[in-house]
Amino acid sequence: MNYRFSARLGSFSSSAVREILKLTQGDSIISFAGGLPAEEHFPVAAISEAFGRVMQLGNKALQYGLTEGYLPLRESLCKRMAGKGMNVTPDNMLITTGSQQVIDLLTRVYIDPGDVILVERPTYLSALQVFRSYGAVPVSVNGDSDGIDLDDLKAKIAKHKPKMLYVIPTFSNPTGRVWSEERRRGALELCHASDTLILEDDPYGELKFGDSSRKYPSIFALDQHPEGSCVVYTSTFSKTVAPGLRTGWALGDAEVIRQMARAKQAADLQSSSLDQQTLHQLLEHFDLDGHIEFVRKEYEARMRQMADLIRQHDWPGAVWEEPKGGMFFWVELPETIDTAELLKSAVEQGVAFVPGITFYADNPQTNAMRLNFTHNDAAGTVAGMERLSKALAAVLV
Amino acid sequence: MNYRFSARLGSFSSSAVREILKLTQGDSIISFAGGLPAEEHFPVAAISEAFGRVMQLGNKALQYGLTEGYLPLRESLCKRMAGKGMNVTPDNMLITTGSQQVIDLLTRVYIDPGDVILVERPTYLSALQVFRSYGAVPVSVNGDSDGIDLDDLKAKIAKHKPKMLYVIPTFSNPTGRVWSEERRRGALELCHASDTLILEDDPYGELKFGDSSRKYPSIFALDQHPEGSCVVYTSTFSKTVAPGLRTGWALGDAEVIRQMARAKQAADLQSSSLDQQTLHQLLEHFDLDGHIEFVRKEYEARMRQMADLIRQHDWPGAVWEEPKGGMFFWVELPETIDTAELLKSAVEQGVAFVPGITFYADNPQTNAMRLNFTHNDAAGTVAGMERLSKALAAVLV
Repeated sequence: MNYRFSARLGSFSSSAVREILKLTQGDSIISFAGGLPAEEHFPVAAISEAFGRVMQLGNKALQYGLTEGYLPLRESLCKRMAGKGMNVTPDNMLITTGSQQVIDLLTRVYIDPGDVILVERPTYLSALQVFRSYGAVPVSVNGDSDGIDLDDLKAKIAKHKPKMLYVIPTFSNPTGRVWSEERRRGALELCHASDTLILEDDPYGELKFGDSSRKYPSIFALDQHPEGSCVVYTSTFSKTVAPGLRTGWALGDAEVIRQMARAKQAADLQSSSLDQQTLHQLLEHFDLDGHIEFVRKEYEARMRQMADLIRQHDWPGAVWEEPKGGMFFWVELPETIDTAELLKSAVEQGVAFVPGITFYADNPQTNAMRLNFTHNDAAGTVAGMERLSKALAAVLV
Repeated sequence: MNYRFSARLGSFSSSAVREILKLTQGDSIISFAGGLPAEEHFPVAAISEAFGRVMQLGNKALQYGLTEGYLPLRESLCKRMAGKGMNVTPDNMLITTGSQQVIDLLTRVYIDPGDVILVERPTYLSALQVFRSYGAVPVSVNGDSDGIDLDDLKAKIAKHKPKMLYVIPTFSNPTGRVWSEERRRGALELCHASDTLILEDDPYGELKFGDSSRKYPSIFALDQHPEGSCVVYTSTFSKTVAPGLRTGWALGDAEVIRQMARAKQAADLQSSSLDQQTLHQLLEHFDLDGHIEFVRKEYEARMRQMADLIRQHDWPGAVWEEPKGGMFFWVELPETIDTAELLKSAVEQGVAFVPGITFYADNPQTNAMRLNFTHNDAAGTVAGMERLSKALAAVLV
């Protein structure tokens, strides 16, 4: 049999993170690579209890359900979203298999081959993979520690007439940065004026450090919404409850959501009824905000530990800042260092990270690396940073 | 905001089944429409126990997992597949969110716009929707009660040079028919000779009636396999355990599976860890074959009840046969009757079915209907058939 794969196959190069994840599963490598939450903090007892409540609902709980998602879950989530300034009804919400699927479905219904999608520089690599698989052309927009560069955004909108802008404004992957409100409002204005749809990816927004009363309003909340919004917002339970329940959601104009639901029907009919109902029971009977507060403090402590270790190891020429939330450090090394090469010696030393090169839509920088600080415990982080320093010392010779 | 959806949007017309399902949820309509298993037979106690075992595995059970699927589940499934003459390793298997996702992923990696996909006449409507969404042109091949018409298949392969053939050879949706082994071998030979990939969809194969020792070997089992097979096989737990666990799988050549896994990574990273692990524990500790034997007998009884009712009501000019397995009756009415029109009066009478028109790739027949016999209990089936007869009498006047 001579297999004749489609032309789009080339776009599905396996993501470096996932391949590394595969290599490092269950062996002696300390990984700062994956965006993994700390599994020891998963609320397993509460999930078990929630599952028990689902089973009490009877057999119907395990039947086929609506493509749009389990209605009581959507209703609970609407209340939760209202608390964050996003006033939506269940018709403005689609439940998905993680927020990754939101990226896929929105691209599927909105993008034609050749369309330009503006993205941050750098940005989430698996979003780039999705965009390219539908024939879109991702083009990067510059940014700094306050968020996207509005002049560059304006220029790129004028030049490329993009259909979409994909952003992670709150504790970005990979840089950990958070946009100022001014940048959020500025981007919104430019996109409204040019009919550019914003896909606002917010997996990390709940993981904020420091003063917990500090608010970072979503771009969706700042826009007229839900109907007529130029933003589709997505978030997930993967970082606040557990990734294994694979449940995310999209918010947006009801017509945009309806089109995404049709595409989802073709893609997989619906996401797991069991996961959705378990999460609904969890939202109704568990202090999720208290749990998030706990996780947030744990992650902040881990972030500070890693920051202290980076300072102690004093890598020559390293440029980085303490993230205000999220899961990642972004470390730029001297331009002579190719972090893809560094990864090879790092893995020999028994430590992994993600080389910066994978996060660029165009003109990649080769001297940065992304370090996850949420997954390893204190001893693992100490040992991993030690190994990483050795690998770095070897290439700096 | 002026939304600018993609050109492929037109292909995502919402499936009639799902729309009817939506209308009939929780109200007084008796539905023969959806392909729903009988929820009262879901093995809920065993699922609860399996979930308990997963929770005992510790928090890691809820972490991100491999895109390819939970390895122990793939290993258990390999053993199960070997018992059906399909000798595969975990590298030949991808775990998905139901077998619907297999159709989507294989189409994504294999089909370019304009490619022809041959399908049965009639065939599963949500497969047609997926194919069209990727720009494929589905072309139907004639068949009879022994399966696909080999002469027509040969002619259509010669004429259209298709990239793929999509079939449900065992208890087809919508017709309930089962292919003879001769037709299976004949189709395989024609496809091998022309490098046509066969997507063999087998959601119903376990639901066989009559002598349970009777075997219907899959086309995949009849082919050289796994490597170099011209078949990708897919099945699901949706009909044997419960649809709400949303778990299906694909079997095929390792390279084809690898490409599908890459596409899945972009689509949703992975399917629910919780569902996969629960199913793995179920396979290890529950008598699934005993359960299937029980369900099979229940469904056969329901099928016979509906057959008796069709005979009793004696619809003028109705042509149908008793299915040897699966979930559906396919009833052809006199050509003067448009079943899409009939559905309207049926819904007024309080009963629903799926009009045949939705199941055709081309030149649709308008006088058939698909009736599901697995979901309703005996009283519901009696009442529903009564209502359907009234609706039919009204249009026959």
